[in-house]
Amino acid sequence: MLHAIIMAGGSGTRFWPASRRRRPKQLLALVTDTPLLRMTFDRLNGLVPPERVWVVTTAATADATRELLPELPAQNVLAEPEGRNTAACTGLAAHACIAQDPEAVCVVLPADHIIEDHEGFRSALTAGAQHVRANGGLLTFGISPTRPETGYGYLELGEECTHDGEWAIHGLKKFIEKPDLDRAETYLDSGRYLWNAGIFAWQASDLLTEIEKQLPELANGLETIAAACGGADEDSVLHDVYPTLPATSVDFGVMENAAQCWVVPVDFPWSDIGSWPALSETLPGDENNNVTRGRTTTIDSSSNVVISTGPTVAVVGVDDLVVVATPDAVLVVPKDQAQRVKEVVENLRDNEWDDVL
Amino acid sequence: MLHAIIMAGGSGTRFWPASRRRRPKQLLALVTDTPLLRMTFDRLNGLVPPERVWVVTTAATADATRELLPELPAQNVLAEPEGRNTAACTGLAAHACIAQDPEAVCVVLPADHIIEDHEGFRSALTAGAQHVRANGGLLTFGISPTRPETGYGYLELGEECTHDGEWAIHGLKKFIEKPDLDRAETYLDSGRYLWNAGIFAWQASDLLTEIEKQLPELANGLETIAAACGGADEDSVLHDVYPTLPATSVDFGVMENAAQCWVVPVDFPWSDIGSWPALSETLPGDENNNVTRGRTTTIDSSSNVVISTGPTVAVVGVDDLVVVATPDAVLVVPKDQAQRVKEVVENLRDNEWDDVL
Repeated sequence: MLHAIIMAGGSGTRFWPASRRRRPKQLLALVTDTPLLRMTFDRLNGLVPPERVWVVTTAATADATRELLPELPAQNVLAEPEGRNTAACTGLAAHACIAQDPEAVCVVLPADHIIEDHEGFRSALTAGAQHVRANGGLLTFGISPTRPETGYGYLELGEECTHDGEWAIHGLKKFIEKPDLDRAETYLDSGRYLWNAGIFAWQASDLLTEIEKQLPELANGLETIAAACGGADEDSVLHDVYPTLPATSVDFGVMENAAQCWVVPVDFPWSDIGSWPALSETLPGDENNNVTRGRTTTIDSSSNVVISTGPTVAVVGVDDLVVVATPDAVLVVPKDQAQRVKEVVENLRDNEWDDVL
Repeated sequence: MLHAIIMAGGSGTRFWPASRRRRPKQLLALVTDTPLLRMTFDRLNGLVPPERVWVVTTAATADATRELLPELPAQNVLAEPEGRNTAACTGLAAHACIAQDPEAVCVVLPADHIIEDHEGFRSALTAGAQHVRANGGLLTFGISPTRPETGYGYLELGEECTHDGEWAIHGLKKFIEKPDLDRAETYLDSGRYLWNAGIFAWQASDLLTEIEKQLPELANGLETIAAACGGADEDSVLHDVYPTLPATSVDFGVMENAAQCWVVPVDFPWSDIGSWPALSETLPGDENNNVTRGRTTTIDSSSNVVISTGPTVAVVGVDDLVVVATPDAVLVVPKDQAQRVKEVVENLRDNEWDDVL
């Protein structure tokens, strides 16, 4: 049967001060009044019932996750003692699915992306899942690029193998790390490259077989954890073993060298809203291209992102800034340096200002 | 006897969001942990006892003023129903002093300036007060300029008339409105011009005589108010009459054409901290010339003024900005546009966001 694995292990630095250790990005209502994780869960409506939705998250956010998704059986929230990247995360979830359903087919989704075409999304996932159920292999969905973005990884398309309705299924030639602008422009022009959105489909058993072949240490650790599952020492084994697992991504660590990989090109509007300025991809701007949320006022200012979850925010005579205010913290940074919010979080840590972390 | 009149009628727009209608600048602890009005009051220690200190303030801040200055007899806080500029304000206070002490000599001080040399300040005030007690006339203290400031009015020095200890007493040639930069530079070079700091001394009766000569309408109104003082209709007369008084300044409206005016040049460090960026005149900057107060962090940022009375504020990669955060409001504006905070306050008023006004 079809299961959905939602990867919700974000650490909550890129959206500081809105995001915190206990309130990472996926728990934030960044673009509507609904938290991103809840939007991701709701997007599965009609495709996968709640009892077959699994959320892999951190210990710090497990309770908040269960509260946000009350339809979910409590044991379907898998709490990683610490983040060990997506190979461990998807492997852990594959074991959980298989324990319930040895023939489980999984679609794997980041918790914090924006996809507005729900029908197209569900249709593509269905086609991908059918393909891996029938053919095996590890499959990824690639987004047709709309700009020469240097902030994403890319997928190089192989030959088209088959069609499922409107969806073409290709071989996957290569995963590509974030390119420079020149290469990103070449990729865009060629039509043979897609954005790697981190959305996957596979039979749970196929993923575990590949992990066993390529990452035996990870496979052993995951088996130890799975063997303890349901026993008295379930929690202590998880806490002892999981942090020792090799931390590598499922795409470069497993799929890159897998026996068979597929890619389904999709063209629904998608955003990973990876930073504050990316909100302007999703939220409409005012006549001066300011994107605002909350009680804000902008005077003689343009192209700013001004967000408040509490205080009234006034900006005057400034351009291209990110200004974010919460009741207990404020950030001001130029849009083109927004990724430096990580330095802020490090700085707060150094200062031991734990109340705003 | 010597009385001190503290003019504390600020409306609290230039220091928004820290300042509000009910918490104007003089009630803020802008440069130390002590509110400016309290610093002004404490500066009089040893010169004028509390029972002869008068504070003219607005109805909205009268209670907060009494709370801040518990030594002050409650009736020494004079609450203007609305601000009518300094001629009305000093005239009201002169009547209050005379009712208690017909021979009152008054020193008049803005509530919200910074003067760090308390000894020099008290010594100059004493010399000025002695001079007007002996000679009559209206006297102002002028600050030796240290830069070609275009934000202040100037005083043109007349001939030196006499000395009192270290203090020279000059005739006053002219009050001059804020000059342009060329003229300000000429003033600075000539050595014959001083900054008009709005600090005065006179016999209360001499001020009222001049008001009677030059502003008979104001004199009549003030007499009506004074006549009702202590009676059952004291409050209602004040509220009916005061708002109708001509609103003019004591320097241009009264002193400019007065029979005899004096000026005492003083050279103690002085700042009227007229705007957020002016805090850098008084507060030390860090190695990148950032002036900060409260829990703030600045990363790769220079020459900013970053102030918080609550939230943790982080700025990254910005220069020459004012960032001010309070628990319920945040301002971001370039330093050289800081005076535009008035537009913000108008905007908030238009939006009827009264809770942050």
